[in-house]
Amino acid sequence: MIKTSDIERPSMEFLKDLSGISSATASGELKRLGITNPHILGPIARTPGKKIVGPAITLQFMPKREDLTSSTEAIDQKNAEYNDPEKQLHRHALYHTQPGDIVVVDARGDLSSGVFGEMMLTYFKGRGGLGVVIDGCIRDFPMVQKLGLGLWLRGVTPNFHTQTNIFPFAVNVPVSCGNVLVIPGDIIVADDDGAVVIPINLAPQLLKKATDHSEWEDFSRMKLAEGGDLRKYYPLTDEARSEYENWRK
Amino acid sequence: MIKTSDIERPSMEFLKDLSGISSATASGELKRLGITNPHILGPIARTPGKKIVGPAITLQFMPKREDLTSSTEAIDQKNAEYNDPEKQLHRHALYHTQPGDIVVVDARGDLSSGVFGEMMLTYFKGRGGLGVVIDGCIRDFPMVQKLGLGLWLRGVTPNFHTQTNIFPFAVNVPVSCGNVLVIPGDIIVADDDGAVVIPINLAPQLLKKATDHSEWEDFSRMKLAEGGDLRKYYPLTDEARSEYENWRK
Amino acid sequence: MIKTSDIERPSMEFLKDLSGISSATASGELKRLGITNPHILGPIARTPGKKIVGPAITLQFMPKREDLTSSTEAIDQKNAEYNDPEKQLHRHALYHTQPGDIVVVDARGDLSSGVFGEMMLTYFKGRGGLGVVIDGCIRDFPMVQKLGLGLWLRGVTPNFHTQTNIFPFAVNVPVSCGNVLVIPGDIIVADDDGAVVIPINLAPQLLKKATDHSEWEDFSRMKLAEGGDLRKYYPLTDEARSEYENWRK
Amino acid sequence: MIKTSDIERPSMEFLKDLSGISSATASGELKRLGITNPHILGPIARTPGKKIVGPAITLQFMPKREDLTSSTEAIDQKNAEYNDPEKQLHRHALYHTQPGDIVVVDARGDLSSGVFGEMMLTYFKGRGGLGVVIDGCIRDFPMVQKLGLGLWLRGVTPNFHTQTNIFPFAVNVPVSCGNVLVIPGDIIVADDDGAVVIPINLAPQLLKKATDHSEWEDFSRMKLAEGGDLRKYYPLTDEARSEYENWRK
Amino acid sequence: MIKTSDIERPSMEFLKDLSGISSATASGELKRLGITNPHILGPIARTPGKKIVGPAITLQFMPKREDLTSSTEAIDQKNAEYNDPEKQLHRHALYHTQPGDIVVVDARGDLSSGVFGEMMLTYFKGRGGLGVVIDGCIRDFPMVQKLGLGLWLRGVTPNFHTQTNIFPFAVNVPVSCGNVLVIPGDIIVADDDGAVVIPINLAPQLLKKATDHSEWEDFSRMKLAEGGDLRKYYPLTDEARSEYENWRK
Amino acid sequence: MIKTSDIERPSMEFLKDLSGISSATASGELKRLGITNPHILGPIARTPGKKIVGPAITLQFMPKREDLTSSTEAIDQKNAEYNDPEKQLHRHALYHTQPGDIVVVDARGDLSSGVFGEMMLTYFKGRGGLGVVIDGCIRDFPMVQKLGLGLWLRGVTPNFHTQTNIFPFAVNVPVSCGNVLVIPGDIIVADDDGAVVIPINLAPQLLKKATDHSEWEDFSRMKLAEGGDLRKYYPLTDEARSEYENWRK
Repeated sequence: MIKTSDIERPSMEFLKDLSGISSATASGELKRLGITNPHILGPIARTPGKKIVGPAITLQFMPKREDLTSSTEAIDQKNAEYNDPEKQLHRHALYHTQPGDIVVVDARGDLSSGVFGEMMLTYFKGRGGLGVVIDGCIRDFPMVQKLGLGLWLRGVTPNFHTQTNIFPFAVNVPVSCGNVLVIPGDIIVADDDGAVVIPINLAPQLLKKATDHSEWEDFSRMKLAEGGDLRKYYPLTDEARSEYENWRK
Repeated sequence: MIKTSDIERPSMEFLKDLSGISSATASGELKRLGITNPHILGPIARTPGKKIVGPAITLQFMPKREDLTSSTEAIDQKNAEYNDPEKQLHRHALYHTQPGDIVVVDARGDLSSGVFGEMMLTYFKGRGGLGVVIDGCIRDFPMVQKLGLGLWLRGVTPNFHTQTNIFPFAVNVPVSCGNVLVIPGDIIVADDDGAVVIPINLAPQLLKKATDHSEWEDFSRMKLAEGGDLRKYYPLTDEARSEYENWRK
Repeated sequence: MIKTSDIERPSMEFLKDLSGISSATASGELKRLGITNPHILGPIARTPGKKIVGPAITLQFMPKREDLTSSTEAIDQKNAEYNDPEKQLHRHALYHTQPGDIVVVDARGDLSSGVFGEMMLTYFKGRGGLGVVIDGCIRDFPMVQKLGLGLWLRGVTPNFHTQTNIFPFAVNVPVSCGNVLVIPGDIIVADDDGAVVIPINLAPQLLKKATDHSEWEDFSRMKLAEGGDLRKYYPLTDEARSEYENWRK
Repeated sequence: MIKTSDIERPSMEFLKDLSGISSATASGELKRLGITNPHILGPIARTPGKKIVGPAITLQFMPKREDLTSSTEAIDQKNAEYNDPEKQLHRHALYHTQPGDIVVVDARGDLSSGVFGEMMLTYFKGRGGLGVVIDGCIRDFPMVQKLGLGLWLRGVTPNFHTQTNIFPFAVNVPVSCGNVLVIPGDIIVADDDGAVVIPINLAPQLLKKATDHSEWEDFSRMKLAEGGDLRKYYPLTDEARSEYENWRK
Repeated sequence: MIKTSDIERPSMEFLKDLSGISSATASGELKRLGITNPHILGPIARTPGKKIVGPAITLQFMPKREDLTSSTEAIDQKNAEYNDPEKQLHRHALYHTQPGDIVVVDARGDLSSGVFGEMMLTYFKGRGGLGVVIDGCIRDFPMVQKLGLGLWLRGVTPNFHTQTNIFPFAVNVPVSCGNVLVIPGDIIVADDDGAVVIPINLAPQLLKKATDHSEWEDFSRMKLAEGGDLRKYYPLTDEARSEYENWRK
Repeated sequence: MIKTSDIERPSMEFLKDLSGISSATASGELKRLGITNPHILGPIARTPGKKIVGPAITLQFMPKREDLTSSTEAIDQKNAEYNDPEKQLHRHALYHTQPGDIVVVDARGDLSSGVFGEMMLTYFKGRGGLGVVIDGCIRDFPMVQKLGLGLWLRGVTPNFHTQTNIFPFAVNVPVSCGNVLVIPGDIIVADDDGAVVIPINLAPQLLKKATDHSEWEDFSRMKLAEGGDLRKYYPLTDEARSEYENWRK
């Protein structure tokens, strides 16, 4: 029987604190903490307006190799999708789902294979999953977009996943997704700007830094919207800062 | 005078029966019938939520070659688009339109040429056309998206089609569109997952298979949405199957 | 102190006259004036339904070279984004903003750097800017899409612009954007079909030609929508033309 | 039994006259005759120093579709390559070979399929074939490079042609090879600069123009190699022309 | 201290028997054994004429992530390449070298990082290594090409490997190289056609099949080179077979 | 009359001192001086074994725009290449040639235009030019490869430069070549690993650092070639260092 590792999850409180941070803020602060580029490039927001924050379950695909995909070899060609489903590792990734989880899939940028379909994602949603970030595709998008999950995808396809050139190879191992290394249990922040990986050990520092920012930015934003001078209000000059202090009162 | 072949069309009844099938179901069943990959990769849904099923009129573009595109040579440079329009084969593709038809265009993935504009597509709609699948672009998208056609496109452009590097070369010949071979008269199923080609000879078998599926899937979907176990409900175990039988009553 | 050139702007009247022209009409007429391909390929409409017309302020990025980006070298690594902001040329591009302006950015097609974020674009909007055409990305898209600007972009990203491989190099110089040469002060027309560059010297001729077109096209469109014959109504045959003359009365 | 068309060939005298022309000269003169770009982009010289001129036999590949590649369906999986070889159209292309012929293959840029191997190309050489231009690959390159044929290829591969995603679909039909339209019987000129297509009807004009050029260029070349002024010697100024007239004597 | 796994190697006799097989033969026979595509696509022969056969040591690169590449963080910026070299896993891959070994590197197709340089490869050669297959680059090509190793590379570069975006992550784990899954200890056959992966368990079967082939092919080749009929000699018809039997005596 | 700037050149002595440095050494030392990536990616060595070092004359191409390329508009279509050649800026780049110069061309990666042909490069060679680095193509490669110049090119083509989509726009301005910023007068080092840009101000420091290296490396190389331990000899351990000191005597 197949047995895959689970991930360690931070406390719900901690995740709640992080949930106010945008992917842009996370990326900016991570830069200051030494991470040049935490952006998962390729998968884009397919559920506009959605924003999710949570720990990453990872799933890794590899190029198909017929001597290793034994579940494929043994199967009844007429009914391939359902035969021996317990050998299909992409199912095992979902078995780990706990409320608030996010599944990150290295599907090798493949545009011909649907990693998950409606049934799998309905199950994921039923278990409390928040969303998926896939360097590849899902299928059944007409129905899946209504499930309420957040979806960051390279594309969509009508094909299912055993149809073409890749197969699920490992669960909860380090993966490269969109040219970023993701360790199982890292925090994902995803919104309309894209998905960002926060290394779990840097998350507390990031949280602290990110909250300093926002107050004076509200003032600057207001001033700039009124036609205020960028040189004065962003960043705040000394003069603008005292204006800000007054406004704040 | 230019004369191009028409296609053979299945009965309206048959098309109506097929119209319940999604592109994902069609792709899955075709896999079981031996077709590895029927998905037209590249053109994506530009009219979200639209779904169309119908026979394919095909149009093939080729790289421009000035000694062959004689309509181009002869023209008055000041009024290029309208001169001798009857020599332009993309018009002839549309002349074949009957209610329920879909036009499939191999525009070579070109992103600099608009294959059809508002006028052409208004005519196509007026004749009962359902939609177009183009491995390339249309122009006049601001207006065309309001016509009610289904549009699967690689992109949109303000350029017209004689502007750059390709020209319409043949109508109702076998074409490669999005890396799938399409024979004139094949059935196209297109929705938000993309467009799929059903070889006309496999369409009856596919129809039969596709209808078996859906009943027990409704039950599974319901259970999974409630947090039910994927191992039990998808596919149905024996235990789940008897639950299903009860529920069905 | 850094000093960059401003652009010459046409009169507001002239811009208003041009504002009725679509990018498709502009592209078609420019073809007749000898310009093969004025379409900025790559940046696509991210604010569907928006249409803008205005003069181009240009901004050029170059590959990062650490000996030249001295503002980067000198900075306090903890607070990189704000240190010595006046050396950052992308700010200077915005300082030139006057009501009706459009900023065109050659960001080298880079998908890892956000050229502008919410604060910059709030300032730009506050100064009367209409929109941006960027062969690259912005950040803060969740907020920026609500500002009311027109956005033609290759993508969006959570990263800021000094984060990766490019840096702002020059303002109001000739740039290549989406494989089209843009001279500062050229007119940009952008809508859902994409963005087109009108060389400023050709703008008066284009304006004259473009207005001839539209009247008989309304008649043709109506006829085609009713199922009229393309051969008769587009372009108008002599017979159709007299129908048109009657209809017009 | 499969029957494919043959091509019309120009006289051997005519081909001999053309054989002095380089691909660069052909491309330059074709530009003057109105053909913008006759260069087959993609396939590059794999037999450096080779130059060939001859008429084109064409072979077209299409994306594999299992219901159509009946030779594939019927085959004994253990011995796929040899079963029913007469149904494989790439063999039929070679059956047309006459001394001096060149085979041009639209293999769709595919890098995973070897269109021809050593045996096929040994036969082609035995029949007097000059070389091949393939927008795709051959296999058995270790041996094939010793056959004395000219080879312009996108790549080489150890795979054979039925191994992956394409199959031979038609012989001696118009094809797009490296983004140039090739009509069966057109003349190919290929050397280290690449392969150029001369439309057969333009070949006589091209031949005439190309021979004018070369005499004064020899003089210019000599002068430039000695450090002569480009402004004076290329093209020849009046002063340089009289120098040339003297030198010629 | 870092400790990485070694591979299991087949006997030298077995490798010697395999050494007569070309990559094309290996690919063809693997197809018959059920492996669709064993060709490592991307790395090409940089040492023309070389052929190697041997077991694969694997090395995996991942996208750089500054919190994990601690050897990088700690280093003296002035002397980065040499500091704490024992933490650099690409060195550990080479420590496993035994005579006849081949190193296979998943360098993610990166063209900006030199995975190995002259010193590393001199050591590898000194230890009896046969060659490398890298989906990426080496540096010091001017000297390395003289070492006598076989080199299959995507490119060459003057940069060293810590210079850009990837870092060595694991040794002797399953890797994807050129879109083929390679398990440590699999057999690599590489020549001018490219590099092929033979799953170790299929190697004995492949060896047996591959030797059947070649005898009658020598006869066919001879006949075809003399202008013999492809239909008769490849594959051999019954008539040709008896010719062959006679010739063989 | 067109007048373009010349570059400043370092002394011949200085260039001679630099000439012993390989591109790999230059890249490594530049990294230590703060330049992450000085490698011009794209153009590769087309004259294997050649190595050149010298100051950069730069030439910039831009996308063709018919209203600006007036030299093109005015020309006699029958004789386009020679008409008004003095307006063609690629000629002006070569007019600046002094012995030891290298021309660096941003040809936008274009593969359809030959930037220089035999005549131009014969002149360049006659004037003492060392070689060219072009992010694009030359034509007349059959003859040009014999001139003795060093050539780093993205490709070769039979087309001439006004044939397609780009035109020469500026001489001796900052350019991006192969994704590296080159300032006129920077030093280029190019060999079989590729071409590297040394910012002129960093050249003296680089020269000093690069010469330290090489002595002990000769000893290491010898030891490693004999099967010596990488851990001991590269870099040198203390033990190995005293071996080295002895060997040196």
